[in-house]
This record gives sequence, structure tokens and C-alpha cells, in this order.
Amino acid sequence: MKSREVALASRPVGMPKVADFEIREVEVPNPGAGEVLVRNVCMSVDPYMRGRMVDRKSYTPPFAVGDTLTGGAIGRVERSNHTDLKEGEYVESHLGWREAFVASDRGLRPLGELKAPASTYLGILGMPGMTAYVGLLEVAQLAEGESVFVSGAAGAVGSAVGQIAKIKGCRVVGSAGNAEKVRHLTEDLGFDHAFDYHDGHLTQQIFEGAPQGIDVYFDNVGGDHLQAALNCMRPNGRLALCGAIGQYNATAPVPGPNNLAIAIGMGLTLRGFIVSNFNHLRDHFMLDMTAWITGGQVKYRETTFDGIDKAPEAFIGLFTGANTGKMVVNL
Amino acid sequence: MKSREVALASRPVGMPKVADFEIREVEVPNPGAGEVLVRNVCMSVDPYMRGRMVDRKSYTPPFAVGDTLTGGAIGRVERSNHTDLKEGEYVESHLGWREAFVASDRGLRPLGELKAPASTYLGILGMPGMTAYVGLLEVAQLAEGESVFVSGAAGAVGSAVGQIAKIKGCRVVGSAGNAEKVRHLTEDLGFDHAFDYHDGHLTQQIFEGAPQGIDVYFDNVGGDHLQAALNCMRPNGRLALCGAIGQYNATAPVPGPNNLAIAIGMGLTLRGFIVSNFNHLRDHFMLDMTAWITGGQVKYRETTFDGIDKAPEAFIGLFTGANTGKMVVNL
Repeated sequence: MKSREVALASRPVGMPKVADFEIREVEVPNPGAGEVLVRNVCMSVDPYMRGRMVDRKSYTPPFAVGDTLTGGAIGRVERSNHTDLKEGEYVESHLGWREAFVASDRGLRPLGELKAPASTYLGILGMPGMTAYVGLLEVAQLAEGESVFVSGAAGAVGSAVGQIAKIKGCRVVGSAGNAEKVRHLTEDLGFDHAFDYHDGHLTQQIFEGAPQGIDVYFDNVGGDHLQAALNCMRPNGRLALCGAIGQYNATAPVPGPNNLAIAIGMGLTLRGFIVSNFNHLRDHFMLDMTAWITGGQVKYRETTFDGIDKAPEAFIGLFTGANTGKMVVNL
Repeated sequence: MKSREVALASRPVGMPKVADFEIREVEVPNPGAGEVLVRNVCMSVDPYMRGRMVDRKSYTPPFAVGDTLTGGAIGRVERSNHTDLKEGEYVESHLGWREAFVASDRGLRPLGELKAPASTYLGILGMPGMTAYVGLLEVAQLAEGESVFVSGAAGAVGSAVGQIAKIKGCRVVGSAGNAEKVRHLTEDLGFDHAFDYHDGHLTQQIFEGAPQGIDVYFDNVGGDHLQAALNCMRPNGRLALCGAIGQYNATAPVPGPNNLAIAIGMGLTLRGFIVSNFNHLRDHFMLDMTAWITGGQVKYRETTFDGIDKAPEAFIGLFTGANTGKMVVNL
């Protein structure tokens, strides 16, 4: 059988272009002994993948030109020669942006009985949801009743951050990229204040939502957002550095915040993290988040594209603000 | 009797000038009931005072033009109307850069029997020594055997940082501003590697001293030093943000490190602090540091100026690299 996959055709310079990606067709072999054939049902589209398209040392090696891109995916076992992996079972993998593939159990995580639609395991019950959970509760050590600012608040991670903070009795301010997202944050997700960062005046907007300043900043954007957040921090505040989507497409080094020295006098802690270093909290996360979703305390949205040939467009959309909530490609 | 004091004549713009200070003579009254007359024997000259000369909100209010500057001082009780403060006793105060003053016991800390020369209580046994101690052991959570980089390493804080790290079995790299200071760090204080930051190539120099990278960076300088340190951090590294002497005289906002996003992938923690928030560790500090000094494990130097009229020159010298170890004005 044939499967299409998405390869890196060239390293993007600045904003990625569709031509930086190649959709190619490959032959999928029959599963051998102990192997399964998996057909993916949806693929995750995440900002961090942009970093891997640059040829530099990081916590994961860069993609090579010609490589099949890898991101999270949920698939179903279509044929199985493995005793523990049943046909029809859902599995999560990071084995490539492809329609179908053959693998041993290595790199496959069976999802058991689904508690929500399959794509949810790429979003609120997956990496982005867990990123919000560990970043807020473990990295930033959020305490009940504090004030929180989250940037990129309408994204998959940001929207979870805000809602978890509300569950913890916190005041929540969020920034997003257009009026509809701002409305979504305050009217649908219960944020206390939200604003469109294109307005400028980031510092003023944060103070408008949190006049006493903020205890925790969850940074998805970097740059001007981080600088503004520093202006608003309360003593002993914590800043969870999760992402810097505002500079992923920069073609030259971007200056850091010019007010970092505020951290000295205010006793601030800035802590960077990647979610894969917090796998010991996965069970807690799954229990809490499943309960919050089931109880209606956490809502989630997806922005979907259909067909693997649309994956490059979906990916580019992350940087143009095309998504509210999790960006998913359905196959 | 008369006493001279140092007042702020004008807010310095850029590098402070002698004319920004005024030495003036005032009449010291007789001590009233419960009061003492203190004659200072030495005054502390510290970089952080530069920040208070700027009119902006910070952890301590700014000096007003015309104010007597305040910094640490050690004095002797010359006349006492206080039952617990004996004549001849040494006291530490932050009651102004003055030769003599009258005060109640408020703001006076009796030093008891001196374990070292009086000026030591402004340096290695005082605020700078304790800053090094809490910054390294509490803020940066230094562990035995790690690799440490400290900037401003020949200063009062930096030289203590390096020596404490050596006591903890760590590899220590330091930067300083001239060849004699570099020699002092490696030959007298036991640093594993030291370099003159004027050479440029900060990142290379740090890696030369710590080829596997550094676990802890103790930042006294900010700017290019912080940026270079970020390039060299190992996973889960900690950066204690103590000072930014490299930018205290800047006349425009200084861009932050352009590589702060490294903190995300490497899981770094940057934590700012001021020593006065760690007074609960004072007894531990005094015990440890007194033992280290007595045992010869920690050495210290002072750069001294004589006479209160030399205080402005001493202060300016902090920013021109005039001091090795603690800068003190003897009265």
C-alpha cells in the first residue's frame, strides 16, 4: 500500500513557505513479526517544530533536509503481528508526519479506551495540555488566588493555562492576536481580562487586568511580551518560559528584554522548561485534566485542516494566528 | 562637635562625577536619653548605591538630591546614654555616609567582640560576603562538584563566590578587568581559570575553563557576560542574578541577552535576589564564613581610600575597576 508523508524540502528562512515542504508518496511494507501497521487519523501541528528546521544544536537534533518531519500523531492499528497491540486500538506516536507506517511497539503509546475524541490526545489531553499543567503548577509554582498573565492565550497551551489558573482561583489576563480570540478568552473561557497585542501598550493592558501586578507569567511569545510582563511582576514572581513564538521566524538574533535587571530587585525567578522533562507528572495530569474536561471546567477548541497535503499550510498558520486552540491535521 | 557627610548634589548621568557629590559639615548634637554618639571608623562603598541615584521605583526608594547618601558603616560608640550599648563597642549601621552621628538603638547592630578587623564586617563578614553565600548556596542551589562561572570575580562579592565554590569542591571560572586581577584569582584565590573580559571572546573563555559547560552562573555584570554564560549552561543550570554593574551607568535601556530562549530547551532557572530577603540565613553565614576565614580557606582583600572626602572617588572607582576585593573608606 501507498502512504503520503511530509518532508522538509528546504530550511525555511523567516516565515516558512509551502515550498519548504514536500509531500511524497512511499510504499508501506507489510508488518513483519512483532510489528503493526498503523494508519494515522490525525497529526499534531506545533510551533516547536519550527526550531527543529534550523540547523543548530538544541534539546532535539535538527531535521535534515529531506527528512520526514516528525510530530505527534494519533493512529489506529490496522494490522497487527504484535501480541499486545490489537487491531482497532488507538496509539500515539512521534514517528513521522505520515498517513500510515509499520513499526514495532517501540515509540508507540497505546491510548486504551478513549475518554474523548482521538484528536484531543494531541491537544488538551496531550502535549499542549500537559505543558500548561506542569508549566503553571510545577515550574511556576502557582498558588491559589494569585494573578497570572499568559501570552498566546488563545493557543492550545495558553487557553489551557488560563483555565487551569481559573480553577485554582486566580485572576487571569491573556493576550491574543485578534478581537474574536479576545472575545473567546473572556466570554467562553472565563479570563478576567484579555487584549489584542496589536494594540501595543502591553504593560498598560496587563496592569488593566491585574492592577496589583502579576505573580506568574506564562510565556509563549517572548520578546515584547516578556519585557512587558517583567514590568508588571510582583515581588517573588515566577516566569515560566515555555516558548517564544514571536521570534521563531527571526532571521537575526532578537535582543532580550531590556529590563531583565528588574528580576534582581524584585526577586523574580525565570525558569525555562520542556514538557518531556516532567513525565513523572503525567498520571496526575491525565487524572486532573480528564476530570476537568468531563466536568466542563476546561473547554477546548481545535482548528483543523483536512488531508496530509494541507499540513504545511496548517503549520504556517501557527505563525499567522490562524488557529484558536489546538492546530490539527485530520487524515 | 562637627561631622562631615556625603550628600547627593545631582543625579549622575552616565558615569558619576565627583561634582555629583557634596561633602558638607554639620553639627552633631549631644546624645539625648537612650541615645548614643557613634563615630564611624569605615564606610562601605557598593555598586548597588548607583541604582538609588536614579529617580525610579525599585526595592529601595531613590535618594533625593540633597540627601545624605546611606551605605553600610562600622562605627564605635563614643558616648552612650543607652543601657545596652557600651562606650567603645562596635556597631554596624546604614544611617548615612557620615563621620559621626547620634542615634537610638534603632538601626544599630552591635557586632560584639570583633573576630576580624572592623572593615571586614563591611566585606567578607558583611553584606558582600553574605550575598555570595546566599546567592551561591541558596539562590543557585550549588551542588558539590559542579562547574561555576562568576563575573566581576575580583570584586568583594565575586571573590567570595569563587572561594566558597572551591570549598564546595567545584570547578570555578572567573572574569575580571585586568591582568593583575586575573593573576590574583588563579594564584591567590585558587580559581581554576580566570580571564580579562576585555579580551572579548567571553563564551570561548568560559568554555576554556569549563569545557563541559557550567552548572551555575553568578552574575554581577549582566549584558554580554550574561549572554555568554547562557551559551555555556548545562541542562538544568541555575543563574543567580545578583547585579549588572556593566549597565548601571547606561543612559538608555540596554538590550537583554539575545539568546534567552536557550533557557527553554536547557531547562535553566534565572533567579534574581537581594541579600536582605535572606536574613534567616545570617547565623549560618556568620558561622561558616568566620570558620573559613580563620582556617585560611577564604582570603579577602580590600581597596581603601582614606577620609570621607575621598568617598566619591572611591565610589566612582567601583565602575572603573579600581578595586580588588571590598572597596572601603577609612575614616
